[in-house]
Formats: sequence, structure tokens, C-alpha cells
Amino acid sequence: MSDDHVELNTTGDAKSEAPRRRRTGGRDRTRSAAATRIEQPAFAQVRRRFPATPVVSDDEIEAIHDASLDVLEQVGMDVLDTDARTLLVDAGATADGERLRFDREMITELIRTCPAEFTIHARNPAHNVRIGGDNVVFTAVASPPNVGDTAGGRRTGNRADFQNLVRLSHHLNTVHMHAGYPVEPADIHPSVRHLHATYDLLTLSDKAVNVYSLGRQRNQDCLEMIRIARGVPDAQLDDEPSAHTIINTSSPLRLDIPMCQGIMEFAARNQVVIVTPFTLAGAMAPVTVAGAVTQQNAEALVGMALTQVVRAGSPVVYGGFTSNVDMRSGSPAFGTPEFIKSAMLGGQLARRYKVPYRSSNVNAANAVDAQAGYESAFSLWGAVMGGANIVFHGAGWLEGGLRASPEKMVLDADLLGMMQTLLEPVGVTPDDLALEAIADVGPGGHFFGTQHTQDRYKTAFYSPLVSDWRNFESWEEAGSPTAHEKTTELVPRLLAEYEQPDMDESILAELTEFVSRRVEAGGVATDF
Amino acid sequence: MSDDHVELNTTGDAKSEAPRRRRTGGRDRTRSAAATRIEQPAFAQVRRRFPATPVVSDDEIEAIHDASLDVLEQVGMDVLDTDARTLLVDAGATADGERLRFDREMITELIRTCPAEFTIHARNPAHNVRIGGDNVVFTAVASPPNVGDTAGGRRTGNRADFQNLVRLSHHLNTVHMHAGYPVEPADIHPSVRHLHATYDLLTLSDKAVNVYSLGRQRNQDCLEMIRIARGVPDAQLDDEPSAHTIINTSSPLRLDIPMCQGIMEFAARNQVVIVTPFTLAGAMAPVTVAGAVTQQNAEALVGMALTQVVRAGSPVVYGGFTSNVDMRSGSPAFGTPEFIKSAMLGGQLARRYKVPYRSSNVNAANAVDAQAGYESAFSLWGAVMGGANIVFHGAGWLEGGLRASPEKMVLDADLLGMMQTLLEPVGVTPDDLALEAIADVGPGGHFFGTQHTQDRYKTAFYSPLVSDWRNFESWEEAGSPTAHEKTTELVPRLLAEYEQPDMDESILAELTEFVSRRVEAGGVATDF
Repeated sequence: MSDDHVELNTTGDAKSEAPRRRRTGGRDRTRSAAATRIEQPAFAQVRRRFPATPVVSDDEIEAIHDASLDVLEQVGMDVLDTDARTLLVDAGATADGERLRFDREMITELIRTCPAEFTIHARNPAHNVRIGGDNVVFTAVASPPNVGDTAGGRRTGNRADFQNLVRLSHHLNTVHMHAGYPVEPADIHPSVRHLHATYDLLTLSDKAVNVYSLGRQRNQDCLEMIRIARGVPDAQLDDEPSAHTIINTSSPLRLDIPMCQGIMEFAARNQVVIVTPFTLAGAMAPVTVAGAVTQQNAEALVGMALTQVVRAGSPVVYGGFTSNVDMRSGSPAFGTPEFIKSAMLGGQLARRYKVPYRSSNVNAANAVDAQAGYESAFSLWGAVMGGANIVFHGAGWLEGGLRASPEKMVLDADLLGMMQTLLEPVGVTPDDLALEAIADVGPGGHFFGTQHTQDRYKTAFYSPLVSDWRNFESWEEAGSPTAHEKTTELVPRLLAEYEQPDMDESILAELTEFVSRRVEAGGVATDF
Repeated sequence: MSDDHVELNTTGDAKSEAPRRRRTGGRDRTRSAAATRIEQPAFAQVRRRFPATPVVSDDEIEAIHDASLDVLEQVGMDVLDTDARTLLVDAGATADGERLRFDREMITELIRTCPAEFTIHARNPAHNVRIGGDNVVFTAVASPPNVGDTAGGRRTGNRADFQNLVRLSHHLNTVHMHAGYPVEPADIHPSVRHLHATYDLLTLSDKAVNVYSLGRQRNQDCLEMIRIARGVPDAQLDDEPSAHTIINTSSPLRLDIPMCQGIMEFAARNQVVIVTPFTLAGAMAPVTVAGAVTQQNAEALVGMALTQVVRAGSPVVYGGFTSNVDMRSGSPAFGTPEFIKSAMLGGQLARRYKVPYRSSNVNAANAVDAQAGYESAFSLWGAVMGGANIVFHGAGWLEGGLRASPEKMVLDADLLGMMQTLLEPVGVTPDDLALEAIADVGPGGHFFGTQHTQDRYKTAFYSPLVSDWRNFESWEEAGSPTAHEKTTELVPRLLAEYEQPDMDESILAELTEFVSRRVEAGGVATDF
């Protein structure tokens, strides 16, 4: 890692904003290093070109839809924020204290204005992402409290690791968007954490970002920083969704105050709300897949409806995150058959409502081992086949979300690269069909040396980051490296390759000034 | 492992048939051990209840189909066996030495009689498997020359390991059928290997078996042993497919003598022929996916046509095994995006021809690591979503098929269990929808203690063999076991649980007598 483009902040004194030197000369260094750069697929807008998998019949989806409307009519949902309650009651809900009940027609009418597709704008337009339809967007991991790698072991999230994970997810082309903080920078005081962390996200990367809905002021601060970073006026930000926020209901059937405020702030500014109930079957939701998804759907519908009450047509995403608990330990499990069935059901429901769908790449492994590999692969396939438009936690999640792992991030980037390649169309032109090459080679021949092969072999196949395809003897001679060891070796190389994206001097100054001012003002008051 | 039911043959003197004692008292021991038995899903006929994934359009499939018929008309295929050539010429092919060319109508007419569905009979009818339609059958690994595990390292295939792998694949319920020798028992002389190995398969297991097409006599010997083991007359064997054989074309565009004989022997007896060209893109086939699959299809069509010339209506399976080579090392790669695209294309072609489809669970990993996990998971998903009716090498394959691994077999059994569970229907009854439970618990409550949960929690979720869902602290206290280490611990426990299936005394005597007689006669003459 060379000093001129990687600045670690390991002091833990994260309340003071360390000034950042603008990178220069990136392009020249790129050229000279090109020969040894790690090969990656290009950043791309991925599309699923075949139908999503219906895991149940249309009738069965209607049964789940109907049951969730029954829940909203008969049981209702606790909405803890007064303003949100008022808005929903004005739109037709019936209040009984904090409990709101919703007429089925009211809900289905309200969500009719949800847009089917929209773009999330990054500060670098080349990194804009299209959400909805058959588009598939992969994100980095978000929100683990811990971070860990082979060299440093498992530790509490901190700004230095946060920054490195931002750098890594910026540098990995198959990570299309940030999903939040790739690890919680717990050494930054919560009153100003959103300011420093968002500054890092916006300056160390130019991919689209997430804002945590932790109260109105934080939402407003972050949206202002994103506006500054994009260099656009307020009106343009309101025209162009440029950030997303996750709304986790407090399952079962509760929407708390920060989440209500997040919906209201984001919908009002035409920014992206991803409503994602965390309905663990057997814990915060019924033990049956259909029951857990029924409750998920009820909660998602209320969140989606509230966005449309605030601003009809504002962008919203249906998030599915139903999984099951390990009934032996009570721990949540991920990448399980029940998780995947739920993910596919969520996709069917989202398509029924014509809204984009979010699922996740998750696992419950404690190491970057075979379990991490297959649980992630199962989740990823379930998400993509289930019609997910956004695959959250696409790269770097371990331990059921309790640990971010740069090594797992690299491993996942390879899985995402494989999936991205798999989703590219199969060429079926006469050249692809290769009749001439087959005739030239003929029975018993060999294709290695043919012109058809020579013309194409360099780009014909996906070139993996991690997978080791050497024969056993060569692999053993090289020290029998496991895939985990390969990622351990790749992380520092990728970080050394990372280049901080350019930012206009005046924008950087404005952003720095905003953060300094807000930090001086104490950020957002906390009672600790 | 208790002596009374596990008999190892580690002498290497495999030409002499060691007499086998019949197991007794299995049922009593089962009962007493029940408390500590490792939980497994039940043996089941798995069905894919949603449409297979079309990776290209119908028009594009027609283009591949047409191109492969162009290959057969213009280039043709070398058929090395005189009898097979005569049969095909009589059916309309044009001969030019060993080269046959085929009219497109001839081929498409001939394959019209291939049955869409059939049953493969095991000697235990409870282990019969249905092939075709939306049925999915998982097999054990077949044919690696080496075997390896943590304790013993990597070694040449031998009968002791062969037997243990047969026991393991018999005991694992998600392995529905054998696929061949789970490792090559190289310490048995090739002249009699098929006799001893088939004896082991038929006595150590009662699941359906494979026969290697290595010349007419071996095919006949093995079919006779299978007939004896099933205890049925010749005519019943001819009515009830009871064995399958793999026909690998010698790509490009060659069908060698043993393969021709295998097709002729098996089709004549109404046994199952699985035609599987091994078309490595960039080596034995064009470097493009569509080109490699075009060639695969041409070769598969000739094999399929020959089965129908021999006996119209005899059971045949379209096998897809197109993958790509690592262009850096020349090694074959597996579980790659190109492998999966090809697997899905093969499925689309098989459905076009209304024949069952075979794909595989493969990887190129040298260790039971994350790569082994994700490449296998990708292959398995590609196979199932691509409409495979038989997933070959379902459990135990490592190193691109060069090593069988009992540890990987256990890991794969877990992947197969996850997939089997995923393919079970989602219950959407009123009970599953859980409206009452949701109403009872209400906003802010918890489902752990409810009756709805209590009634269902024991069977609600897939219970994994390998996945470790403990939290980090408990996992670390237990010594931080990786998934690989977990499988290392599971293999001897599963082998200790294994019980040799009963076989009628008179059948065992007849089988033993047949093998002794054929071994005494020298088996099949070899020149070494």
C-alpha cells in the first residue's frame, strides 16, 4: 500500500476530521501498473435475461397477499411516530392509540403509485445504477458491529477498517453500490458518526451510497452531503434519487420513530426507501415460511404505503429478509432452504405489486470456509433467481452479519463476478455456433490451435479472482493454499491498487466545511 | 466403526473374492442407536415444481439445434464399431469409411421414440428412482482415479476406500443412486475389476447402480449380476430398466468401440444409456459456449439415435458436460459461468427433444474449502434450475474429478439436502399462513413460545449436517472448527452408523457363485 493514496486513520480520535489530500497523477500510475493489475470484470449494469423463478403458484401468492391484508385489517400495526400516524389516518387508516388498522383497498390503492423502475445517481454518473425491471445491482456488506481478518483477528468495528472496506468495495467492480457502513465505525462518537462516515464514503468512493435512518437530523445532514458531493442544486437532487435508506420494521408489526422519520424525510425528497422487515421465522414471525412471509408482506405494505402518502411516485423497494432461527441455539440462520424460499416468495410479491425487490447474499459461517462459500452461493442464487433487483450484503458479510470480512468481500466479489458473467447473454451468432471451426477440426482433432480459438480465448471465459484451477501437483508445490488464504493474499494487493476517485476541489472544500461546521455544532445530540 | 458390519479389504489382493458374512440383527441395533444417530432428511423422490430456466430464447435453441444437424450432415461423426456403423447405415446414414453422415430428418425421426420418463429399478424397490419430467435424482461421485481425506492424504484409488465410499453413499439419504465407482479400485486387476466392484456395489448398497461400458463382455457380466441381485428373470429385467451406463463420446465427433458396444448392449436389454459428450470448450470443442454446445448436441444426437435404432423406446438420457479450460494452465475448470450456461442450454435442448437430462455437481477445488463450496453450489443450482433430471457426481467430487473425497461427500450431502428441502412445496394452507398466531402475538410480541411454533419447530426447518450456526464465541470455544473439519469428524460417525442392507441368502449365494466362476475364468482378457 503506497502512502500517497491510502490514508489510514487508526488514532480512534475520529471526532476530529483529518484533512485529506487530493490524489493526483492517478492516471499515469494506472498505466504503469497495468501489467500487474488484478484482472476484474468491468463495472456493468447487470440484467437477468430469463424469467424469475415462481416458487409457488399465482393463486398461492394471492393467498399470501390476502392473508397479509387480513393482518392489516384485523390486527393492524403499531406506528410509533405521531406525524406518520397522522398522515396515515388522513389517508384512511383507523387509529386506536398507536395501533393503526388499514382497509385492504386503501393499501392496494396507495401502493399503485410506486414506480416500477428508477435510477439511483452516484456522484460519478458512470456508477449510476438502474433499479427495477430485470436489472440486478450488487452492493457491499452493511452494518456489522465487528470486523475481522486473518492478520488482525476479530475486533470491534472502527474507522480504519471502515475506510479500508470502503476502498475495497469501491475498487471491486462487481460491487455496484454501497449498502451502508461496511462495518460500524464505533470509534466515532454517534453524535457525529454519520458526518464522518458519510464523508469517507463520498470521498473514498464515487459509487452510490446509503443513509441510515437514525432520526430526522441525520437523514437531512447526509442528504445535504450527498447533494454537495454530486454538485447539484436541491431541485435536481429531488428529481434524481441519489441515496437509499433501509427501513427495518420492528417485527412483529411495529414501525418505530426513526424509521417513520426516515420514510418521511426520504420520500419527501424523492429518495429511495427500501422497506425491509426482518422477520425471523420462529422468533419475530411465525415458524412457517408462508406465515413469516405473510407478516413480512403486511409490514412491507405499510412502509411502502407511507412513502406514497408522503409523495406519490417516490421510489420505494420491497425488501425481503425472512429467515429462520436455529431451533437448537436460537441463532439466526442464513442461506438456508427456508431463507431462499422466502426470498423467492418476496420476489413474487414484489412483482405482483410492480415494485423493485431487494434480497441479500448472506451466511452464518464463522470462517471463510466451505460453509461461507455454499451458504453465500445459495443466497445469491436464491436472490437472483427470485428476481432481486438489489442484492444487499453482496460482498463481505460473515457470521450472520455480526462480522465484516475484507477476505470474504474478495471471495464474494468473485461469486458476484461469476453471477454477472452468467447473466450476460449467450452469443448465438453464426460465429458463436462455430460451424466452420468444427468442420476444420473434424473428428478426433483439437481446438487449442485453431484461429477461432486464438481469436477469442483471452476473453471467452470468466477469469476468477479467487478460484484456483491448477492441478493438484502445482497447487501442492505452491503450498496448498485454500481459497481463504488466496483472499488473504489478495486483500492488500487490491488495496494497493485502489485509487481514490477524483473530486472537484471546490466540492471537496464545501463538503469539508459542512462536516466541520456540523461537527463543531455537536452533530446530533445524544445522551451519552 | 464396529467390526460386525464393516469389512475392509486392504490386502490389495483383490483378485481373490473375500467371502462376506451376512449382516444380521440390524434392526435391533438401529433402535438402540437411534438416540445418537445423525439427523438426515428422508430418502425421497425429488421434484422441481417450477419451470426450468431458459438461458436463451426458443429461436436461439433452434439455431443451436439446426447448427448441430448441419454438423451431422456436413462433417459427420466417426463411428469406430463395425456393427454400430452397419446399424446406422441401415437406418439411413451415409458411410465414408468410419465417417458417417446423417440426414437431419433421419436423426430427428429416430429420436422421436425416446421415452420422456421411466423408472430405474434398484434391488430395493424403496430406492427406485423416477427419471424425466420434473424429477430430480442426485447421485454419488463416479470415477476419480484418486481418493483423499485429512487423515490419509491423497492416494491412488483402492478397494478399501471404494467400499467405504459405497457405504457412505448408501447411508446418505440425499444420495439417491450410484453413478459408477465412487473411486477407481485400482488394486483390483482390470480383467476382474467390474466383477468385484459390482459385487461390492450390489451387496454394500441397495440403491440403483451404474455399469461402465468397457466392452461387451463386461456389460453382459454386470447386467447378469444386477439381474441376480434383483432376483428377477431375464424378461423382467428387460421390462424394467435396472442399470445405467455413461456413453462418453470421444470429442470431437467420435464414438469409439466400447461406447458403441455399451449402447448396443444396454439398448438391446432396455437399460438406461446416458449419452454424455465431454466437450471442453477451447480443447475438444469450440471456445464459444454456443459452439461447444452445438458440437455436444451433434454427438449426443448420434448416441441417442443409435439407442433407438437398436431398440425403439429404450430409455436414454441426454447428458450435458460442456465446460471450459483454464486458458492459463489448460486444466479443465468446473462450476464456472460457462459450465452453467452450457448446462442450462443442454437442459433446454433435452426438453426440446422430450428426453430426460443429466447434468453434474462439479468443482475444480484442490481442498474442501470455500472454492469447493461455491463451485459445487453454483453447479448444483445450474443443474437444478437448468432442468437436470439426474445430477451426476452429486456427492464427493473434488479436483475436477481427479479425487474422490469422503469429506466432500458429506459436505455435498448437505448441499443436496438443502436443495431437496428447497424443492419441497411451500405450504400455503390457512395453518401455514398463521393468521391466528400473528393475531395472538400481536405487535411487539414474540413467537418462540406460541403453540403454533411449539407444534412445528422440530420439523419446520432443514437441519444441516455440516453448517455450524453457533455464535462466534461458542464456535471459538469449540476450537473454531471449519466446515472441512466438521466433515472430517462426521465421516467416521456416518460410517459407524452405516448398516449393510439385507440380501436374501440364496441371492447372495448365486451372486457369489457367479463372481467366483467368472473370476476363475479370468474375467475379461486384458493384455496386461
